[in-house]
Amino acid sequence: MTIAFPPVPAPDEAARARAAERQGRLTKPAGALGRLEELSIWLAGTQGRCPPQPPARARVVIFAGDHGVAAIGVSAYPAEVTAQMVANFVRGGAAVNVLAGRLGVGVRVVDIAVATELADLPPEVTKWRVRKGSGRIDIEDALTRAEAEQAIEAGREIADAEIDAGADLLIPGDMGIGNTTAAAALIGVQTDSDAATVTGRGTGIDDATLDRKREIVAATMARADPAADDPVALLATAGGADIAAMAGFLAQAAVRRTPVVLDGVVSGAAALVARQLAPGAPAWWVAGHRSVEPAHARALDRLGLVPLVDLGLRLGEGTGALLALPMLIAAADTLAAMATFDEANVSDRA
Amino acid sequence: MTIAFPPVPAPDEAARARAAERQGRLTKPAGALGRLEELSIWLAGTQGRCPPQPPARARVVIFAGDHGVAAIGVSAYPAEVTAQMVANFVRGGAAVNVLAGRLGVGVRVVDIAVATELADLPPEVTKWRVRKGSGRIDIEDALTRAEAEQAIEAGREIADAEIDAGADLLIPGDMGIGNTTAAAALIGVQTDSDAATVTGRGTGIDDATLDRKREIVAATMARADPAADDPVALLATAGGADIAAMAGFLAQAAVRRTPVVLDGVVSGAAALVARQLAPGAPAWWVAGHRSVEPAHARALDRLGLVPLVDLGLRLGEGTGALLALPMLIAAADTLAAMATFDEANVSDRA
Repeated sequence: MTIAFPPVPAPDEAARARAAERQGRLTKPAGALGRLEELSIWLAGTQGRCPPQPPARARVVIFAGDHGVAAIGVSAYPAEVTAQMVANFVRGGAAVNVLAGRLGVGVRVVDIAVATELADLPPEVTKWRVRKGSGRIDIEDALTRAEAEQAIEAGREIADAEIDAGADLLIPGDMGIGNTTAAAALIGVQTDSDAATVTGRGTGIDDATLDRKREIVAATMARADPAADDPVALLATAGGADIAAMAGFLAQAAVRRTPVVLDGVVSGAAALVARQLAPGAPAWWVAGHRSVEPAHARALDRLGLVPLVDLGLRLGEGTGALLALPMLIAAADTLAAMATFDEANVSDRA
Repeated sequence: MTIAFPPVPAPDEAARARAAERQGRLTKPAGALGRLEELSIWLAGTQGRCPPQPPARARVVIFAGDHGVAAIGVSAYPAEVTAQMVANFVRGGAAVNVLAGRLGVGVRVVDIAVATELADLPPEVTKWRVRKGSGRIDIEDALTRAEAEQAIEAGREIADAEIDAGADLLIPGDMGIGNTTAAAALIGVQTDSDAATVTGRGTGIDDATLDRKREIVAATMARADPAADDPVALLATAGGADIAAMAGFLAQAAVRRTPVVLDGVVSGAAALVARQLAPGAPAWWVAGHRSVEPAHARALDRLGLVPLVDLGLRLGEGTGALLALPMLIAAADTLAAMATFDEANVSDRA
């Protein structure tokens, strides 16, 4: 099997032009709604209509997976937390569940590479598992090439399933003790950054653990650097099955003309790889927020995306993207429902 | 009449402490929800309970007024737009109506000093009018001292009426061609800034108009500087009835223990004066957003408030505050509804 994605279509330029023109006729100074105006034009382009509809069937998909590096101490939490949090997502007790519930957004969690066996998880959660934990990336590959392709394919199939079921906006979420180590290495390689710059405190590690994490990121980057231009090899060497699946998911969403709100540093790492898998895909994405992880800003910068929310979050799960969703709704609502100067008999510029 | 506000009570420290303690037990790394955690603690303090409720009866009050300086050209729009937009608010066609409608937030508009007579406005809109347009502040006072006190009193009574009717969160909105000129001058005087630094492009003026606006702000600041420590005199000299009413509204909200989300530069100017009228009031406020008007950042800095949203808005009306409201709801929801480590059998830190 060799993974290949069809060409990514461009968003609808005519719908974008109509949205930009309508923005100029609404009862407000031109440009006064700032980035909401740009968002409304982006949504119009992704939907191929003006005005665009506010997303009505947004979905979060959380890609859960463990990472071998967790065993050598890169997190403030033990590795079994990954599986425990999967159960928490299924029961609805996590931050992502609460934020999504308020917005009427559905949450799906998939076990791509959780290491701990958990009883009582429904098969739709566990059936995508590629392996039990990805390899210890500082000294060995995360995955075989076949596993990386299997994970990318899982992400693609999940995107297809969500879109076929009616999703009109997708949000990638992550859960996995150790996943910011892999994300930092992937972003470091793809942005030509050094390990010390891209390594952050993840769940909130102390200085000694941060030093160790930096060494692990540096060793991983050295191993992965030759694979920088081969996305499947890069994911196999320095990523993990969870991040590979997320990359396939993001690439396929773009192929299927479905807008995406990116989340934090793990989705930033996956997005950089997804852009290699499916050039042009970033036109279908907005950056929901900027996390405090230093690699995240580098990834967004390379993707040409400017985050909507910057509130110091570092949780993952899709939470930062969900905080930005009301802004997309506001952008669509204002473009659709505000009166024009003509309708309201308001004088335009002198 | 001499305006005086009773002492502002402090938010409930015990409720804040319980909220901070509960944040530490939720299934997420400590601090991982960033500023949402701080917001949940703030809300708990304002409501005196933990967990706090998400605001269920938020209200926007738009203070509309004209400014004499509009006649000499400080805006991209003619002065009659103020009255036309008041009618647009009443009909529900403005950005603030659309954003508030999505969130179930009510909007009240009050004509404090609109210059143009408009037929068919309901008496609850027009009955608060102090005068028809405030004075040309570069060469004359905006208001008499009695008018400034009348406007502050109007804002206080409106806050009381909203709170007595059940409002659990208040948002100040502004509408008035020329109002950013007055706001810049008020902020300039209160932050010891020079006129060039605090003057912005408002509705989107060209370079020549910006130069003229800077001269007007400088002349106003020179007139107002001796009144810097007397809030009523400052509003009378360099403000306007709309801003005076908003200052009274913000001061009284704090007296009445009611949380406020501030909006843009006009509410920033009013907030600085309100703090003089009612010391301690900023504890009851959060900054909804940062507008592109340069004076706004100075005002927020002086108030010790960090904005939640920074999306390049410059519309006023309460729109920036409404974009931040979902973040307050998210803060309350997560504190109330997330599972704790114990409840979810998730392992806490190693």
